[in-house]
Amino acid sequence: MQKEIGFITGRCCIYSGKLITLCGGEGAGKSTQAKKIFDFFQSENIPCILTKEPGGTKIGLMIRKILLSPENSDIYNKTELLLYLADRAEHFHKVIVPGLQNGKIVICDRFIDSTFVYQGEARGMDIDFINYVHKYILGDFLPDLTLVLDCRPKSGLERVDRDLACGTRTEDESRFDSEKISFHEKIRAGFLKLAEKNENARFYLIDAEKTVDNVFESIKSAIIEKGIIQN
Amino acid sequence: MQKEIGFITGRCCIYSGKLITLCGGEGAGKSTQAKKIFDFFQSENIPCILTKEPGGTKIGLMIRKILLSPENSDIYNKTELLLYLADRAEHFHKVIVPGLQNGKIVICDRFIDSTFVYQGEARGMDIDFINYVHKYILGDFLPDLTLVLDCRPKSGLERVDRDLACGTRTEDESRFDSEKISFHEKIRAGFLKLAEKNENARFYLIDAEKTVDNVFESIKSAIIEKGIIQN
Repeated sequence: MQKEIGFITGRCCIYSGKLITLCGGEGAGKSTQAKKIFDFFQSENIPCILTKEPGGTKIGLMIRKILLSPENSDIYNKTELLLYLADRAEHFHKVIVPGLQNGKIVICDRFIDSTFVYQGEARGMDIDFINYVHKYILGDFLPDLTLVLDCRPKSGLERVDRDLACGTRTEDESRFDSEKISFHEKIRAGFLKLAEKNENARFYLIDAEKTVDNVFESIKSAIIEKGIIQN
Repeated sequence: MQKEIGFITGRCCIYSGKLITLCGGEGAGKSTQAKKIFDFFQSENIPCILTKEPGGTKIGLMIRKILLSPENSDIYNKTELLLYLADRAEHFHKVIVPGLQNGKIVICDRFIDSTFVYQGEARGMDIDFINYVHKYILGDFLPDLTLVLDCRPKSGLERVDRDLACGTRTEDESRFDSEKISFHEKIRAGFLKLAEKNENARFYLIDAEKTVDNVFESIKSAIIEKGIIQN
């Protein structure tokens, strides 16, 4: 199966696997699309792992509970940032690196870019500090492909409400959903800025307001275009 | 009451209160002595707060549970470090600073020195990184007095066993107790080194193998000598 995994040129590859990350605001459809990518790879017999941040490890799940619980809405912004970074350290070391070392495609719902946008852009926290801690945790590692799922905050939050109503999303993880619309606007603008700058040519902007199947078709094109798999 | 709180000269005081921290290995008697200091100040009508790290806040208690649970003994060392720092950010912002601003003496069971010694010295982690994050969280802030409770690891661990047997300490917070004796020796050596260097003249070495009352007498002398209260 290994041969089906392509290699992006122009990037120092220390692992034989590849990391695909999904980012975007609340209700943009990241989890849904991450699962669709996973199912697609599985159907093609491509070895892969589906994971997420925060909460991709046993300890990460305990951190996620602290971070997303509405009862912790008074959390200090530096505490919040350090908890996301603690979760990332655990997840990178225990899930992402072993997966990549085993030649797998790791599909991760949220990663470093959510920290840049939520904490850096929207909360106005020190980007140099975020970069410094990322360097400490990740070294020079970057994802191979980052899918930016873009939708208007209003559409995303409506989707969140639908998910809450039908039970596919729970109230105990809704801390960010209840932020003001201006916060969600900042989030959207932050991700669009990342996609536009497209540093390391790893970003791919996806219109997430289309149907689930249409969005997934765009994602599949991106995966092939970026050489993660061959057509 | 305010007049009973002294001021250490030669240090830029931005708060009217004072911070006393206690550090040392497992079973050195930090919690017992912290409580005795608190009771003493209360009996003297000196406004004070008794607190601890990790776990001096609502969110800190959730972090403490992750850190001290024996079932998380496989935690990655960078995760562990970042969780201690997250706890510290929350605690400093929500408990220590407000306490000091209100002119109180804050008595804190463990603080920055435990991170230097447990993670820096014993686990061999990057001291520059620890300093960088401390600077981000605390600025140039330092405790006014740090009591180093020194005892042989054997004596400390025997005390831990006694506390477990009589129920004043619980198994679910025993992760560090079960480390090898060589780990505890490193911890002791690390704290002794800090006390010997005595940077910022804030350390005071206490022989913690004496009786509880004798240890407390030494602590009282240190508190007066350092000008925290007047004799």
